Amino acid sequence: MPTNPPPVLDLSYKGVEEAYELIKEKVKKTPVLTSESISKIADESGRTRLFFKCENFQKGGAFKIRGATHALERLSPQQLQAGVITHSSGNHAQALSIAAQAKGVPAYIIMPSNSARPKIEATKSYGGKIYFSDPSASAREALTASIQSQTGATLVPPYDHPAIILGQGTAFLELVSQAAEEDGVELDAVIAPVGGGGLLAGTALAAQGGGGSRVRVFAGEPADADDCYRGLASGERVPVSATTTVADGLRTPVGVTNFGVIQKHVDAVFTVSEEEILRAMRLIWERMKIVVEPSAAVPLAVVLSERWKAEGVKGNVGLILSGGNVDLDKAGELLMGKVPAV
Amino acid sequence: MPTNPPPVLDLSYKGVEEAYELIKEKVKKTPVLTSESISKIADESGRTRLFFKCENFQKGGAFKIRGATHALERLSPQQLQAGVITHSSGNHAQALSIAAQAKGVPAYIIMPSNSARPKIEATKSYGGKIYFSDPSASAREALTASIQSQTGATLVPPYDHPAIILGQGTAFLELVSQAAEEDGVELDAVIAPVGGGGLLAGTALAAQGGGGSRVRVFAGEPADADDCYRGLASGERVPVSATTTVADGLRTPVGVTNFGVIQKHVDAVFTVSEEEILRAMRLIWERMKIVVEPSAAVPLAVVLSERWKAEGVKGNVGLILSGGNVDLDKAGELLMGKVPAV
Repeated sequence: MPTNPPPVLDLSYKGVEEAYELIKEKVKKTPVLTSESISKIADESGRTRLFFKCENFQKGGAFKIRGATHALERLSPQQLQAGVITHSSGNHAQALSIAAQAKGVPAYIIMPSNSARPKIEATKSYGGKIYFSDPSASAREALTASIQSQTGATLVPPYDHPAIILGQGTAFLELVSQAAEEDGVELDAVIAPVGGGGLLAGTALAAQGGGGSRVRVFAGEPADADDCYRGLASGERVPVSATTTVADGLRTPVGVTNFGVIQKHVDAVFTVSEEEILRAMRLIWERMKIVVEPSAAVPLAVVLSERWKAEGVKGNVGLILSGGNVDLDKAGELLMGKVPAV
Repeated sequence: MPTNPPPVLDLSYKGVEEAYELIKEKVKKTPVLTSESISKIADESGRTRLFFKCENFQKGGAFKIRGATHALERLSPQQLQAGVITHSSGNHAQALSIAAQAKGVPAYIIMPSNSARPKIEATKSYGGKIYFSDPSASAREALTASIQSQTGATLVPPYDHPAIILGQGTAFLELVSQAAEEDGVELDAVIAPVGGGGLLAGTALAAQGGGGSRVRVFAGEPADADDCYRGLASGERVPVSATTTVADGLRTPVGVTNFGVIQKHVDAVFTVSEEEILRAMRLIWERMKIVVEPSAAVPLAVVLSERWKAEGVKGNVGLILSGGNVDLDKAGELLMGKVPAV
């Protein structure tokens, strides 16, 4: 059976713009919030203003729907009909299920058999067809290959893929235009969290802009999962990250395609401790009255760190609040600064 | 020293409109959010759509700034200069401090000596001048009278006052116009929580509308603090409410002026259990990704109750999320459905 060749996607600012045209009616234009009190805590001099892009309000509770929707838009009608498949237990599984449901095609989700019940329930509620595998990587890959050959479904990986990267970059496109339209400001810098690097690489491409001036792009990474930081320092991607950081969305090592983009376009990665992450998360809940997950608080943790202050970045700084999917049974511990047992 | 007579305020729809003209540049126009998933939980038939007015995002974290700002706008220059005074440990103390600070005049706050530290700190941070009294009502009143005679400050009570009632009603004016402009809908009903009754009475006046059609007005009240419910049933205000309901903003009995307005203009009061309040609060945090205090969840608890379903109200229902000032040290217990020890 002949299949169409995959489209060649341009890993560039233009590629993000094209992705946005394809998905803008299908994802939520999430609000941009400001907080005078947090901006003042970050910089007493008053020369820094923070702009929070609230992807915690996105469909599925995280930015992931952007990449998943874009990946589906890039499939041929024939591919689409056979559905999509991924192995994930987290936000990507849910996002792919939502995006597939919107298209009326199946999403096959391979999940470790020890996945948390709320994640299983959420994925089911969005119509994902779940297959449980042993938690080992080899078992997972074998089951994925088997379902893929039975169904002809297209694999949509969570981050290491051009369509995913370009889709995730659209959050920053919106942030730039919202800051300009609603607050009349140009951003000087943006900080995104980095795990697999889909959001960070997409943001970095989007920040290349159409014109001459470029926004500075920084990343925040848990010190307990600092493979991206170490990879940039050594010039070589670190492919493994064994970690139980509380920022559970950032436990995966950065992808191959992602690392190439990040090396080229990201100004610096800042690492933050578990304590700094939870303190920043609590500050967002307390002052902004919104629920964000630990991973989403990493950029604010960066802004509040001594290393950032030493860097001397002032002005209008965008922070991407990546998601709000917290297990509320564990919220008490998180808010008290404790890392709950997995 | 001659003082100007207090302005005669019209307890009517027009009075709320006039209040709004005076305060609209001074308070935040808070967003109105919708939630498909919560609307569906409330009414499987899909004939109910809920509109949440997010006063948890208001300055000071609650609607109280509306009434306090309006009360200050109604003072003569001479009165204003001498400052304002109130006895409260909660959201009203903070709101009055913020409103007075914006005017550059002193706010004297009489607080029980056993007030929680976060409330004291918040009031101080907004420039309130705090005086601690014994927790008894007589000690509090004596100290208030003493400071008042020393300073000439005007007493601004938390709810039983026309200027406060009219100010609180402005949240509903905004909600109506936002639902019309942003979603193209007319509201069929609104539910406000009731404690002292400032917000509820103001909402009821605002709902009289300028034209012919009137929005139905309902109240939500904790069953553990049901003085308003009982007062309407018996036709006589119940002046005492001894309660430790988890909805700590709703522990006070309804005020005299407030009760009169409520008797005349509120369609019905629904009571809800502590468990129902906490379940509704958790649902808001989980699905809407926003932080609300237990009192703010009371209207949603009403919509999810059997008694409401029996009432058969369908259509576009506005819910006023009154505030988001939760002690995050106790959030874990609240989210697990437990009422923390006071």
